[in-house]
Amino acid sequence: MNQTGIAAVNPSLPTGFLTQGNEKLKERIYSRIRPDLERIEAEIDRHLSSSVPFISTVGRHIMGSGGKRLRPLLMIQSARLCGYQGNHDASLAIVFEFLHASSLLHDDVVDNAEFRRSQPAANVLWGNQGVVLVGDFLYSKSILMTVGYNDIRILQALSDATTNMAEGEVMQLIHADNLEISEGEYLEVITRKTAVLISAACQIGAIFGGGDLEQEKALRTYGHNLGIAFQLIDDTLDYTGDSNELGKPVGNDIQQGKATLPLIYALRNGNPGEKKKVRELFGTEQIRLEHLQEIREWATRSGGIAYARRLASEYVERAKEAIRIFPLHPTKEILLDLADYVIFRRA
Amino acid sequence: MNQTGIAAVNPSLPTGFLTQGNEKLKERIYSRIRPDLERIEAEIDRHLSSSVPFISTVGRHIMGSGGKRLRPLLMIQSARLCGYQGNHDASLAIVFEFLHASSLLHDDVVDNAEFRRSQPAANVLWGNQGVVLVGDFLYSKSILMTVGYNDIRILQALSDATTNMAEGEVMQLIHADNLEISEGEYLEVITRKTAVLISAACQIGAIFGGGDLEQEKALRTYGHNLGIAFQLIDDTLDYTGDSNELGKPVGNDIQQGKATLPLIYALRNGNPGEKKKVRELFGTEQIRLEHLQEIREWATRSGGIAYARRLASEYVERAKEAIRIFPLHPTKEILLDLADYVIFRRA
Repeated sequence: MNQTGIAAVNPSLPTGFLTQGNEKLKERIYSRIRPDLERIEAEIDRHLSSSVPFISTVGRHIMGSGGKRLRPLLMIQSARLCGYQGNHDASLAIVFEFLHASSLLHDDVVDNAEFRRSQPAANVLWGNQGVVLVGDFLYSKSILMTVGYNDIRILQALSDATTNMAEGEVMQLIHADNLEISEGEYLEVITRKTAVLISAACQIGAIFGGGDLEQEKALRTYGHNLGIAFQLIDDTLDYTGDSNELGKPVGNDIQQGKATLPLIYALRNGNPGEKKKVRELFGTEQIRLEHLQEIREWATRSGGIAYARRLASEYVERAKEAIRIFPLHPTKEILLDLADYVIFRRA
Repeated sequence: MNQTGIAAVNPSLPTGFLTQGNEKLKERIYSRIRPDLERIEAEIDRHLSSSVPFISTVGRHIMGSGGKRLRPLLMIQSARLCGYQGNHDASLAIVFEFLHASSLLHDDVVDNAEFRRSQPAANVLWGNQGVVLVGDFLYSKSILMTVGYNDIRILQALSDATTNMAEGEVMQLIHADNLEISEGEYLEVITRKTAVLISAACQIGAIFGGGDLEQEKALRTYGHNLGIAFQLIDDTLDYTGDSNELGKPVGNDIQQGKATLPLIYALRNGNPGEKKKVRELFGTEQIRLEHLQEIREWATRSGGIAYARRLASEYVERAKEAIRIFPLHPTKEILLDLADYVIFRRA
């Protein structure tokens, strides 16, 4: 199963430990996907033009600022794994980046974000009003682009996903400042807000690539599990990451009253005295920096990070397992590598 | 052409003058559309359920509070005019109410609205965050419902419309506080933000109802012209309307720095001294109530209302002209009545 040679290392080791393996893995992935990435970038640029220049400006800001293009890449690899060999895939692939960008814009408004990817958040630069509306535009545009592919099954999978996502975003908002959120509720939120779109990108890649139902289901499952792992790691990075690498302040989730798995675990298993203190701090208007740091350290010390990383590893294994039905193929290796990379990424 | 017996009355007469004819027309329309309205209401209610109760609550607030259901009604009549006789139309019809509601929610966030239809605006009750996200949900849901009809041409028309609408909303925002907006620019904004969706409702009704291309185009044109007239009158009501009837404060557009046709006309043709004063007041943080009243009266006195109503009447005539290709039919009469009613409505 293991294609990378590094998955055998205990994934609950602290971040930083694996930088070297991480860099090698990253390089190997990049060397294989570079041509796809270039096509994706060109296609995004081409579709960001609008008769309203403000839309292009905000769109370029949110879509040009160092995104990983994970979703379009997954769609393209999935199609190829199912036998697709043409180059008509990029404009469908970028639909997932447009949808992702739209949801980032609305998230930033909802979260009153100040930074994203080392730049001021769009709402800081242009105000909530324009950002909400450009988010709406990117969303509409993504549906319009998908319609151009003339395939109801693709549209069905896509609109199922976006409806699910919107519900997930609302669920997350409802759980704001809720320290009592259970692991199950948390997993449902991250499934909907993140995994569902990644899963749809893979599934739609399979449909577009002419895969059969078994292949479609396999790639959908791969994406689902990868997506959950991706968000689990994202949530640990708020505790262990470096704000320079992340391009946004760490401790952000805590500051916004979002209890993610490291904290949920720590509250379930940590020292009662410290738990009480965290409960008092959490959800106050503005948590002071030293308290933020204390909460981060406490969650790590209580095993919350190790637990979240372990769970993420399990989801990665499930993702890899899901595509076992495909024969060995360079594209399959990319998907396996991407799954491993999700665990080892630092930003 | 004239089916109502009142279109011969000079449409530039002040509102209120036509209350009686207005009421008769309204009654005649309602007596004919009541069964459709009931089906629409039932269908909206059925589709507002969500696994997330907050979504149903906000959805019921925005969609339950006295909407005219103009868009779903137009879709149903258009389908019927093209020969549709089934009852599978209501779930497609309400797509247009969902889209409209989604755009109202985002508008209220963008405008910082306090009231809508005599109730506190959703953003006042639940905050911008939840309202943005529920708007996203209603939008996604409307695409999902449309996909269920399995017709790419319908999806094409719909996503063309929503993309166009989103651009129109951004254009309107860009023109905020712009007193120099030309009549042409203003017409482009209202076409995109209002007419495009009404036009799509009529066109999609035709496609769904099995109309031929000529019928589809006719209904699309009808909806386009009706939509422009509808918004022109909406904009005059901000000057001449009654806040009790409207369910929101009058002078709202002026207060928000939106120059609509009555003001654009008055600035082009009014007394230079008064123009200067209006320019000074317009776009200040908070215009005092007596100044708001002065601007409203000035625009009316300068002929802005009469001009906007005259233009609206022209669009209504174009709308009616567009469906001349259909033989006399009770459904055609409803569409002609609705076109007339657009001019005479007071809220």
